[in-house]
Amino acid sequence: MASSLISRQLALSLQKNLWLSASGCRYVSKAATKTQMEFDYDGPSMKTSVPGPRSQELTKQLGDIQNVGAVNFFCNYEESRGNYLVDVDGNRMLDLYTQISSIPIGYNHPALLKLMTNPHNLSTFVNRPALGILPPENFPDKISESLLSVAPSGMSRVQTMACGSCSNENAFKSMFIWYRNKERGQTAPSDQDLSTCMVNQAPGCPDLSILSFMGSFHGRTMGCLATTHSKVIHKLDIPSFDWPIAPFPRLQYPLEEFTRENAQEESRCLEEVEDLIVKWRQKGKPVAGIVVEPIQAEGGDNHASPDFFRSLRNIARKHGSAFHVDEVQTGGGTTGKFWAHEHWGMDDPADIVSFSKKLLTGGYFQRDELQPDKPYRIFNTWMGDPSKNLFLAEVLNVIHRENLLEEVTRSGKALLKGLYELQGQYPNILSRARGQGTFCAVDICDDETRNSIMLKARDKGVILGGCGDRSIRFRPALVFKEYHVHIFLNIFSDVLAQLK
Amino acid sequence: MASSLISRQLALSLQKNLWLSASGCRYVSKAATKTQMEFDYDGPSMKTSVPGPRSQELTKQLGDIQNVGAVNFFCNYEESRGNYLVDVDGNRMLDLYTQISSIPIGYNHPALLKLMTNPHNLSTFVNRPALGILPPENFPDKISESLLSVAPSGMSRVQTMACGSCSNENAFKSMFIWYRNKERGQTAPSDQDLSTCMVNQAPGCPDLSILSFMGSFHGRTMGCLATTHSKVIHKLDIPSFDWPIAPFPRLQYPLEEFTRENAQEESRCLEEVEDLIVKWRQKGKPVAGIVVEPIQAEGGDNHASPDFFRSLRNIARKHGSAFHVDEVQTGGGTTGKFWAHEHWGMDDPADIVSFSKKLLTGGYFQRDELQPDKPYRIFNTWMGDPSKNLFLAEVLNVIHRENLLEEVTRSGKALLKGLYELQGQYPNILSRARGQGTFCAVDICDDETRNSIMLKARDKGVILGGCGDRSIRFRPALVFKEYHVHIFLNIFSDVLAQLK
Repeated sequence: MASSLISRQLALSLQKNLWLSASGCRYVSKAATKTQMEFDYDGPSMKTSVPGPRSQELTKQLGDIQNVGAVNFFCNYEESRGNYLVDVDGNRMLDLYTQISSIPIGYNHPALLKLMTNPHNLSTFVNRPALGILPPENFPDKISESLLSVAPSGMSRVQTMACGSCSNENAFKSMFIWYRNKERGQTAPSDQDLSTCMVNQAPGCPDLSILSFMGSFHGRTMGCLATTHSKVIHKLDIPSFDWPIAPFPRLQYPLEEFTRENAQEESRCLEEVEDLIVKWRQKGKPVAGIVVEPIQAEGGDNHASPDFFRSLRNIARKHGSAFHVDEVQTGGGTTGKFWAHEHWGMDDPADIVSFSKKLLTGGYFQRDELQPDKPYRIFNTWMGDPSKNLFLAEVLNVIHRENLLEEVTRSGKALLKGLYELQGQYPNILSRARGQGTFCAVDICDDETRNSIMLKARDKGVILGGCGDRSIRFRPALVFKEYHVHIFLNIFSDVLAQLK
Repeated sequence: MASSLISRQLALSLQKNLWLSASGCRYVSKAATKTQMEFDYDGPSMKTSVPGPRSQELTKQLGDIQNVGAVNFFCNYEESRGNYLVDVDGNRMLDLYTQISSIPIGYNHPALLKLMTNPHNLSTFVNRPALGILPPENFPDKISESLLSVAPSGMSRVQTMACGSCSNENAFKSMFIWYRNKERGQTAPSDQDLSTCMVNQAPGCPDLSILSFMGSFHGRTMGCLATTHSKVIHKLDIPSFDWPIAPFPRLQYPLEEFTRENAQEESRCLEEVEDLIVKWRQKGKPVAGIVVEPIQAEGGDNHASPDFFRSLRNIARKHGSAFHVDEVQTGGGTTGKFWAHEHWGMDDPADIVSFSKKLLTGGYFQRDELQPDKPYRIFNTWMGDPSKNLFLAEVLNVIHRENLLEEVTRSGKALLKGLYELQGQYPNILSRARGQGTFCAVDICDDETRNSIMLKARDKGVILGGCGDRSIRFRPALVFKEYHVHIFLNIFSDVLAQLK
C-alpha cells in the first residue's frame, strides 16, 4: 500500500518537475483508446549552431580523458522528450538517428520513468547478478513475457548478452560448437582436441570459418570484426581470420525498372556464396556458419529481395552451415515488423537471430539444435543485465498498446514518399531513396555534400546519421509519427533548396 | 524542494518496506564517525538444502529457454543484504563468491538504493546514450569524480566499455593500433594497408600477436579467448590465433620456505617470455602486447612476486611491446589496495589497465601514447553505460567513507590466518593457503573433495567458488568484516571435521 502511494506521488512529482516545467511541450492524444498519453515537444527549437559554446567547452574537458573526435555535442537527457533530443546549449532537435538506432520509444517515455518508481524494481538495478549461475526469481517469467513473446519463428531458446558484439561473438561460438559436435557425431572430444585447444592449435581450436558479406557490419570485437567489411577505420591494424567474404547484391533503383538486372545481380552473389563455401572447404577451413544482416546498415543501407534471403538460407542448409541473421540494427520494429526477416515470409528463417540496440539488452535466439550441449561453454560473468530486461518488457508493452508497428509502417510510407518527391526535385543531389518501415535511406551525390547536408540539417534542428560512402540513413524511434515526417521533410527540403 | 521531499519519503518507505520487514536483520554500527549505518543480517539461516524445491522448479522452467547446467539456485535479491544472499526458498547464505566477484559493497547497500531515489538520476537509467558521439552533460565530471579518482599511476586516460571481455578486446585493439603506428612512424597507412584490411589480409590486418600466460583468463570473445588458457570448456571448438603462451610461475608454499626455488621458477618463466617474443618476431608475428593478471584468478589463484611483474614490465619495454594488466577480477579493492598492481610499488606499472566486475562498468585506463590517433578506431554503439558510472561513483564514496580498503586488509589477515590454522589441522585436505587482502584461496586434495566441500558449506549457509583444478577461491564483498570471517571459519571448520 505504502509503496503504491509512493509510486503515485513520485509519478505526480515527476510530471510536475520534469515534464511540465519544460517550456514548449505538449500532450498529443490522437486516439481515445490509447491508455498512455503521448508526450512530445511541438517542434525543433534552435538557440545556437551545433555544437554550441557549452558543448565545445565540455568537449575540450573530455578531450583530456578520451579521444573526442567522434563527439557531436553534449546532451541534456533530462530535458529530452519523445522524438526530441535537447543539447546542453538548449537546442531541441528532432532526432532521426536516436543514438545510432538504439532508442526504441523515444526519450523519457513515461512508461519507462514509471517503471523506475516501483520500489520492487530497485533491487534489480542495484544488485546485478551473474545470471548464468544465480538468476533472480522472476527471470524465467520476465524472459517469457518479454523476449519469448517476440521470438522469431521456429525458435524457443534465447540467451541474453551485454551488447551487440558480445551477442554476435557468442552466436559465432554456438555455431562453431554445433558444427564440431556434428562432425564428431556421438564421439566425445579426443585427448588431442582437449590438449591442443589449450594452446590455440587445431584440432581443438579448429580451422573453421564464418562466411560474411562485403559491406556488412557485425561488430568490432575480434571475432565479429573478421565478419565486418564496411569501413577501413573499423579494421585497419587489427589481426583477423582468413574467412570467406561474398559480394552483397548492389541493387539498382527504382526496383520496378530493374527487375531483371537485380535478379541477375542476386543470382551472381548467391553463386559466389556457394563457390566460396566449396573453396574454403577445400582450403581446410569449412564454413560453420553464414552471417548476414537483413539490410546492411552501417555499410550503406543495402537491401536484397526476400528471394535472395530464402535462397541464402537454403544454401546454408544444403552445405551444412548454420544461418545467422544479425538483427542488431534492423530488429525491434523499425521496419514495420518486429524483425526485418519477417518480410521474407519464412517459417524457418534462421538458426540464430541476434539482437541488441532497440531491445536494450543484447542476446540471440536460437533453434534447439544450436544450444551448446554443456554448461559453461557459452558463459561470462553477467550474461546480460536483468535491469535492461525490465525496460524491454515495458517497451514491448508500449509497442503493443500504442500499435507502434502500424505507426512505423504509416510513417515509413510517408517518409519514403517524401524522399521520392525530393529525389524527383533534386535528381543531381539525391538518388536511390529506399527503405522498409522508417528504416530508410537516400544516397547523396558525394561524401562532401552528404556531410554538408547533415550539418545544415542539424543547425535547423534535425539530427541525421550517415552510412556507407555517401548515404544518409533514417533511424527514428518507433514513436516517430506522420506529423514528425512532415516536420523533417520541410526542413530537409529547405536544406536542399539552399544547396542548389 | 519537492524532489528532495520525495527522496526522503521514498527512502523512509524503503526502510520500512524493504529493510525492517526482513526478519533477523540488524543494524551494526561499530564506529560513531561513520555517516552511513551498516546493514547486514545476523548470520546464515537455512531452511532447505540448496537448491531447494522452488529453485528446482524455476530451474526446470528456465531449462525450456536456456542451458541451465550452470545454475546453482535462484535468488531473492530484494531480501538479500550486505554479505548475505537470500535464495527463493528462504535460505540466507554468507556470500564469499559475490556473483563471481562482481558485487563491490554487498547486496542492497543503502547508499546505492538512495541513489535510485533521486529523480535527477532517472533519465540516466531510462535514456542510454551512444556515449562516443552524444555524451550527457555530466559525463566528464562523473568520469573525473569516479574513474579518474582511482586512475593507476601514470594514466590519465580512461575508456569505458560494457563488460570485461569488451574491455580486453578493445585494449588489445589499442595495442595493435599503437604498435602499427609506431612501425609506420610518420607515414600514413598505404593503399595496400587500406585495401587488404577490408578482406582480412595482411598488411592491413597484420600478423601481430599478444603474449599471454598458461593458466590465464582474459575473457571469452574470440580475441580475448586467444589469450585465455585456464580451462578446456572455454576454448574447445573455437578457432583461435597462433599467439605465444608463456608459463606462469608455479610457486611453492609456504613462500618463506621456498624463496630460492620460487625465484628460480620466476626466472625460468621470464626467460621463456623473452624467448617467445624473439621466436614470434622471427615467425613474422611480432608481440604487440603482453597481457597478464596480477593474480591468475579463474586459473587457480596463481600468484607471483612483485619482482616478477617488475621484470615482466621491463621485458615488455625492452622489446617494444605494450604491457596490459588485466584487473577485471583483482581490481576494486579486494586485495587491500584499489588495484592489485599497486603491490608492485611502481610509478609506471603498465601501459593499459583493464577493469570490470566490482567497478560495475567495464573499461580500461591507458597511457597517453596508447590512445588511438583517430576517432572511431575504438568505438561501438554504447561505449559503456552512464547508469553504471553513477553506481560506481557512489561505491567509491562508500569505500572511502567506510575505510573499506583497511577493512579488507584486516579481514584478509584474519581469513588467511584461519586458513593457515585449518591447513595445519587438515594437512591431507588443505594446502597452499594464499592470498592478498580477502582475495584468498586454498587448494583441496582433489577436485571431487573440493566440490563436496563447497556443496556441504552451501547447505550450512556459506557460498564459495572454485577456481583452477582443485582450489577454492574466496571473493567476499569489501564489506566483509572480521566477524564475518569467523562465521565463515566456524562453518568451514565444521565441514572439514565432517569430511574426515
